[in-house]
Amino acid sequence: MFSSGPFEYHVVGIGNAIVDVLAKTDDAFLERHNLVKGSMNLIDEEMAHTLYGEMGPAREISGGSAANTVAGIAALGGKSAFIGKIADDELGEIFAHDIRSMGVTFTTQPQAGINPTARSFVLVTPDAQRTMNTYLGASQALSAGDVDEILIKSSLITFLEGYLWDPEEAKQAFLAAMDIAKAAGRSVALTLSDAFCVKKYREEFLGLVENRINILFANEVEITTLYETDNFEKALKNVTEKVDLAILTRSEKGSVILSAGNRIDVPAYPTQVVDTTGAGDSYAAGFLYALTHGYALEECGKLAARCASEVISHIGARPEIDLKTLLP
Amino acid sequence: MFSSGPFEYHVVGIGNAIVDVLAKTDDAFLERHNLVKGSMNLIDEEMAHTLYGEMGPAREISGGSAANTVAGIAALGGKSAFIGKIADDELGEIFAHDIRSMGVTFTTQPQAGINPTARSFVLVTPDAQRTMNTYLGASQALSAGDVDEILIKSSLITFLEGYLWDPEEAKQAFLAAMDIAKAAGRSVALTLSDAFCVKKYREEFLGLVENRINILFANEVEITTLYETDNFEKALKNVTEKVDLAILTRSEKGSVILSAGNRIDVPAYPTQVVDTTGAGDSYAAGFLYALTHGYALEECGKLAARCASEVISHIGARPEIDLKTLLP
Repeated sequence: MFSSGPFEYHVVGIGNAIVDVLAKTDDAFLERHNLVKGSMNLIDEEMAHTLYGEMGPAREISGGSAANTVAGIAALGGKSAFIGKIADDELGEIFAHDIRSMGVTFTTQPQAGINPTARSFVLVTPDAQRTMNTYLGASQALSAGDVDEILIKSSLITFLEGYLWDPEEAKQAFLAAMDIAKAAGRSVALTLSDAFCVKKYREEFLGLVENRINILFANEVEITTLYETDNFEKALKNVTEKVDLAILTRSEKGSVILSAGNRIDVPAYPTQVVDTTGAGDSYAAGFLYALTHGYALEECGKLAARCASEVISHIGARPEIDLKTLLP
Repeated sequence: MFSSGPFEYHVVGIGNAIVDVLAKTDDAFLERHNLVKGSMNLIDEEMAHTLYGEMGPAREISGGSAANTVAGIAALGGKSAFIGKIADDELGEIFAHDIRSMGVTFTTQPQAGINPTARSFVLVTPDAQRTMNTYLGASQALSAGDVDEILIKSSLITFLEGYLWDPEEAKQAFLAAMDIAKAAGRSVALTLSDAFCVKKYREEFLGLVENRINILFANEVEITTLYETDNFEKALKNVTEKVDLAILTRSEKGSVILSAGNRIDVPAYPTQVVDTTGAGDSYAAGFLYALTHGYALEECGKLAARCASEVISHIGARPEIDLKTLLP
């Protein structure tokens, strides 16, 4: 799956550097603001101001999809790093502190004179669903120049979030990272992130999956959107053998791992769901930790499911227990 | 107890405007940094930097003692306001959002060109005790000019936190607020906040209690420190009849209410303790809400104990459930 040569990091993640601003809300609030429950919406500064002004009291907890994943890998005892852009402000300081204090190497320099550090207003409804409204701010200033070549070369897997496939500069950063990883004989993993990303960049994502990606993470809605079908099994057939490894998650229905023509079904790990924020990110953390530590694929899926169950049992997308206790 | 004339607010609080930065830690970390478990320490910018750099991943939740109390009163359905100083920065924005979104009137203007908004690094050990390390920053810039006369006059009770009795400017703000309240026939309540405040300003606090305060909140350590005794009953005798109403809290041993020569003992409300941050603030919220809504004193103590039990059952000093469900 990946070069077994000497390495420094199991996984380096590249993504948006976001602080989550989490608040409880009700369905009426979502309706009043035309927000589709469970979705991730990109918002501009004006909408960010309006929404924040109207939502309830919140707590700030560092987030960001790929950032959550590498934080989870570090919490499991793996070595991980992160590349993402913060501004020279207080939320940037919070993001940097939180990820570093979990043991993740984070060397991207905060940048002055750009938009403020990204924040996502995460509205959690009584049914434990999260609806995200993200102001990308500083995150969008990531450019190819921020891609630390040595970091990529010395990581077994470079993990990219589809969310970042948007501003032209960030796309160039993505492609640069992929090229470096490939040239070094390393693997590239991608998560499709959200159906809206897939809808917006379907052709480009198909190209990435067919030509540049070794490991693909997607949930049911994302993979069916990618192959324009409403049939999960059909989408699954489409993706088989396009990548070395495809991991398809289906919430409480568990996940499906596809590799070399084989299919492994892994059940979800039962838990009391409080907030689904970060479920997919934490699943990817468990999976990639296990994969880079020589676990069999089924065991990768089981650890992934266990990690996801931990993060959805509380508010916030970062682990709250010592994840090492989940290791078999 | 207080003028029953027309009023706008049940309680206006004056205190430090703080965002709590809460992280789990262990006893070894406290020992390494010479921190006394359960205490509140004031730290300078350098120590703030060091401590933050070494502590684990955190979450930010608005706090501040008097601010927590007026937030709790609003959550119970009372009308409350807050006076406290924030800087023109992101933590200031977070503080202002959180308190306003709970329904508290907060009109103190953010100030540019002062130290950053106050933050308290709250370290929660596995035994659910909190050890606070507060960088006061912008909070200390509160001055008599910030005391909104109309707000004080139109509030049944002006509630002051002892924590703020430190910089000379803030003391002047305190005294100004007391004078306005007294002239308007309103009541003044004070919480002694922490034993270190009492030790540092014992003579001044004794003077306030004897001459300017109608309602006093203190925990066991604070009241015994004030009267330089290690005997709670002795301290209790000392404070009797110095104020109209003294409310002495004793954690799991419940609380004692002293008024007009009478003593009422109220048991603590049993709960699973997760984090004691804000216990006293939330107790004061329940008590003052009840007092300004015509409850008998014993019922004030019971609602107070119930509110305190809610806030110590989770991380963070602000309520997480709809407090109105706790009303009898």
